[in-house]
Amino acid sequence: MKRTKTLNRARLLISCSDQPGIVAAVSDFLHQKGANIVQSDQYSTDPEGGMFFMRIEFDLSSFNERFSTVEKEFPAIAERFGISWRLESERKTKKMAMFVSKEDHCLLELLWRWRSGELDVEIPVVISNHEDLRDIVESYGISFHYIPVSKETKQKAESDAASLLKDYHIDFIVLARYMQILSPDFVKSFEHRIINIHHSFLPAFIGANPYKKAFERGVKLIGATAHYVTNDLDEGPIIEQEVLRVNHRYDTDDLKIAGRNVEKIALARAVEWHINDKVLVYKNKTIVFN
Amino acid sequence: MKRTKTLNRARLLISCSDQPGIVAAVSDFLHQKGANIVQSDQYSTDPEGGMFFMRIEFDLSSFNERFSTVEKEFPAIAERFGISWRLESERKTKKMAMFVSKEDHCLLELLWRWRSGELDVEIPVVISNHEDLRDIVESYGISFHYIPVSKETKQKAESDAASLLKDYHIDFIVLARYMQILSPDFVKSFEHRIINIHHSFLPAFIGANPYKKAFERGVKLIGATAHYVTNDLDEGPIIEQEVLRVNHRYDTDDLKIAGRNVEKIALARAVEWHINDKVLVYKNKTIVFN
Amino acid sequence: MKRTKTLNRARLLISCSDQPGIVAAVSDFLHQKGANIVQSDQYSTDPEGGMFFMRIEFDLSSFNERFSTVEKEFPAIAERFGISWRLESERKTKKMAMFVSKEDHCLLELLWRWRSGELDVEIPVVISNHEDLRDIVESYGISFHYIPVSKETKQKAESDAASLLKDYHIDFIVLARYMQILSPDFVKSFEHRIINIHHSFLPAFIGANPYKKAFERGVKLIGATAHYVTNDLDEGPIIEQEVLRVNHRYDTDDLKIAGRNVEKIALARAVEWHINDKVLVYKNKTIVFN
Amino acid sequence: MKRTKTLNRARLLISCSDQPGIVAAVSDFLHQKGANIVQSDQYSTDPEGGMFFMRIEFDLSSFNERFSTVEKEFPAIAERFGISWRLESERKTKKMAMFVSKEDHCLLELLWRWRSGELDVEIPVVISNHEDLRDIVESYGISFHYIPVSKETKQKAESDAASLLKDYHIDFIVLARYMQILSPDFVKSFEHRIINIHHSFLPAFIGANPYKKAFERGVKLIGATAHYVTNDLDEGPIIEQEVLRVNHRYDTDDLKIAGRNVEKIALARAVEWHINDKVLVYKNKTIVFN
Repeated sequence: MKRTKTLNRARLLISCSDQPGIVAAVSDFLHQKGANIVQSDQYSTDPEGGMFFMRIEFDLSSFNERFSTVEKEFPAIAERFGISWRLESERKTKKMAMFVSKEDHCLLELLWRWRSGELDVEIPVVISNHEDLRDIVESYGISFHYIPVSKETKQKAESDAASLLKDYHIDFIVLARYMQILSPDFVKSFEHRIINIHHSFLPAFIGANPYKKAFERGVKLIGATAHYVTNDLDEGPIIEQEVLRVNHRYDTDDLKIAGRNVEKIALARAVEWHINDKVLVYKNKTIVFN
Repeated sequence: MKRTKTLNRARLLISCSDQPGIVAAVSDFLHQKGANIVQSDQYSTDPEGGMFFMRIEFDLSSFNERFSTVEKEFPAIAERFGISWRLESERKTKKMAMFVSKEDHCLLELLWRWRSGELDVEIPVVISNHEDLRDIVESYGISFHYIPVSKETKQKAESDAASLLKDYHIDFIVLARYMQILSPDFVKSFEHRIINIHHSFLPAFIGANPYKKAFERGVKLIGATAHYVTNDLDEGPIIEQEVLRVNHRYDTDDLKIAGRNVEKIALARAVEWHINDKVLVYKNKTIVFN
Repeated sequence: MKRTKTLNRARLLISCSDQPGIVAAVSDFLHQKGANIVQSDQYSTDPEGGMFFMRIEFDLSSFNERFSTVEKEFPAIAERFGISWRLESERKTKKMAMFVSKEDHCLLELLWRWRSGELDVEIPVVISNHEDLRDIVESYGISFHYIPVSKETKQKAESDAASLLKDYHIDFIVLARYMQILSPDFVKSFEHRIINIHHSFLPAFIGANPYKKAFERGVKLIGATAHYVTNDLDEGPIIEQEVLRVNHRYDTDDLKIAGRNVEKIALARAVEWHINDKVLVYKNKTIVFN
Repeated sequence: MKRTKTLNRARLLISCSDQPGIVAAVSDFLHQKGANIVQSDQYSTDPEGGMFFMRIEFDLSSFNERFSTVEKEFPAIAERFGISWRLESERKTKKMAMFVSKEDHCLLELLWRWRSGELDVEIPVVISNHEDLRDIVESYGISFHYIPVSKETKQKAESDAASLLKDYHIDFIVLARYMQILSPDFVKSFEHRIINIHHSFLPAFIGANPYKKAFERGVKLIGATAHYVTNDLDEGPIIEQEVLRVNHRYDTDDLKIAGRNVEKIALARAVEWHINDKVLVYKNKTIVFN
């Protein structure tokens, strides 16, 4: 069962300093261009001098023509209010690359949700520093590229990956348990477009071996955190978090298994929201209009 | 800790057939009247010929004067689009009455949230068909009225209650485990303004003794449902539902205790949303903008 | 990562009328036979004249020899107390068959958990009344048997399935969204060994089209129920239930998608508990020692 | 509705190095003394050389007489296996003191659960370093003692508190948002008998101002942790944790309110389990038999 796609729907995301008249100006502009607003969400950090964020979904008849008109003429409005903005068409399916290592649970969850039509995305390529998951990936008809990474080859590996991403016209990257740290340059080139799944309820258990630490601390809930990657390790803007209940009977292996199950749930939600342009980033936090 | 109240904030709730230009017209109107929109949520059942719902929070300087202007001039817009609407000022605190019988858990949860400042509401009166909870209620400085109900006196009891509600200028009623069924006339006079807590995860276990039934059925989760009262018993629009995990060790008493804890959580959320005008009713369902 | 399997571990499940001395007799017996009890759970519906249930995990050195001694000599104890019992060895991996139709989400979840080592089970065969899922199943190296079912062929189809289950030495069956009702005879032959996933929070929305009904009722949580199959449709003993939060924006398709995600979680837990002999059935309810 | 109390029920909690024959010896002993075991839970960290924990509930007829026999004769068994143990009678209701400061949400939750019969406990005294909550406490018929604490008076304050606890024969203490750090000596005198509620999902946001930190980090879940107090601040054995979902619209005040609601839930569960002797502590972790 695939979700029906509305072929004349667009999304506009804007952020700017809060000031009177923005909503009126933007909605009036869209109305003039023939748009029918079907959903609109907004958020102000503070009506007096704070930041303003809005996400609008609208339908356009004669889509192609009117969409380019909106694209051409919105900058005038944007300039007037000092708006940062992004205009997306539902006709254009985003292209997602996945980076994986050896663990397959996040990869498979996303592949299943993609094939079942839950995730409206194209997945042209999976890149890995190990060969382990090649067969699975290729069985889905997706290209698998093995790019080993060592201290010496790291820079070369990243530039190879970057070329591939360019060749495949990739819009965003999901690190589905990819066990390598990306360089600041690489991260910068996909700012707020790399989603990572961290195997803990951040900010608890930052760093390595979170399940061992969780076992030693005797926690009663196991968590996972999906976040955008920044150059502060484990400190990027959080998109989604989830937890599962555990108890004293869980050894480190059981906690890992619980962890895998909660990781794939949190990651899948974050990816879905990113695909549907429901996430805005401001400083180190996200606004999720879901 | 009380939430700070914004004294120049208003809320506009509208519903109408979906049609292009509504958002633009409404936001332009508000802008003209000096409003700064701080939050806006909308929902369309279907952009083609469906229903449209919107909730707007906005700030007004020179509040009193401008608020009356909005109140006077919005009807022209409303008429143009066939809009049903409601305008609320945060300055005007709603007046809530509670109807109770003998159980105190929902009553106390709401009293605590009221006194702690979580619920921005006035509670001038509690009405009960039993005397049991008089002392508790009065210890909070709230009037307690005992109105016994029997088959013979039911009509008289309801008209006495109605008088009290009128005297106290009550805006809405919470049935906090009130064990009487209200007459259609009474319900009609407070349409979508009576909130009930039902002790099950509706539509499971409709009717009496839900915990006994839940025990016999061996369920693994216990639920509660807060809904607006209509004349179809247990069938009114659902505002909120919540569940708690249980297991085979729970006897009927344990299930009742779990039930009380989940009832008070679900009811408190529903009441908070109602107070903050976050709930719109359409046919037998709610749109909750939270 | 596979869970390490303890090769000298056994499980004993017993149920009988509650009476003093059972625990002492059973644990003393096991101690005499060289067992080291590593976990023990028990439950009494009522210490006075109720039912008693116990699950014991124990380790045996010289496993094979001592396990048969226990098997041979426990009946004497069992007879003394009128105990129904089951003795299981962790060395013997259960054989599970899956019945599917066209939907793959539950099938894939279980296949993934099996391949990842979460589920300690063998899956020699999948049976379906449609060809749709053949490729997926076979890609996991599992036999796929297509047995179409129509009113006329139903009896024949069931006897063909029964033969297959016998040939493959199947211990229990999972109906992973199998869209056919099994006959009383078939159900009887696998009593408390057929697990079904029902796409609602039973007992709400019994029967067909639960998501359509849930949409119409405007529920705020979507549930799923894993239960043993009996001849009362949707009325068998509940093993596990789970819910996911939804809201007014979810149309019937969205509810279905949420439903799929909650179905696979509830089913996977129920299957894991069944595999690990953690579920005892008494009348129409389960005792789950987890 | 009060839970019915079983007046001939006792609980035995034991911990020791794991070794064959413990369960048999203990259950045989109890059987000899006329006990009917109604529930039994056990846990081994590792059957080979690990630690063993067991909690047994049993009924005794001629309770008083037989209970003292068990009390007198169990030490022989305990010595044989090197068992640490605790024997509790349901007849003896535990006496709980609460320490509070200015916030009332945890205090009131426990008072309500106590009065409603959910918590089978006596609460003879509440001690506070502020006068704010005197009226509430006294309205429940409970003694309120104001013991102000400053750097200079801290030692004196603690010894005054200790005297009161002795006078009231207090069994355990709940820090219901008590904003003072107890001295090592005081903590030692109530080892594993002081329960604190920490306003975060430990180990995240250790220390002061967790809600401010949570706001700045942009978390999507707010947690609370109930734990036994040790001299490592916020590092004592965790008894229970719970979370509530939040989003970008929550400011620091909203997070505090969500936090209060999750704190009282986690604390109430921990207190209930402690009262019912369901918690065993081993090193820095808890075994909760619930």
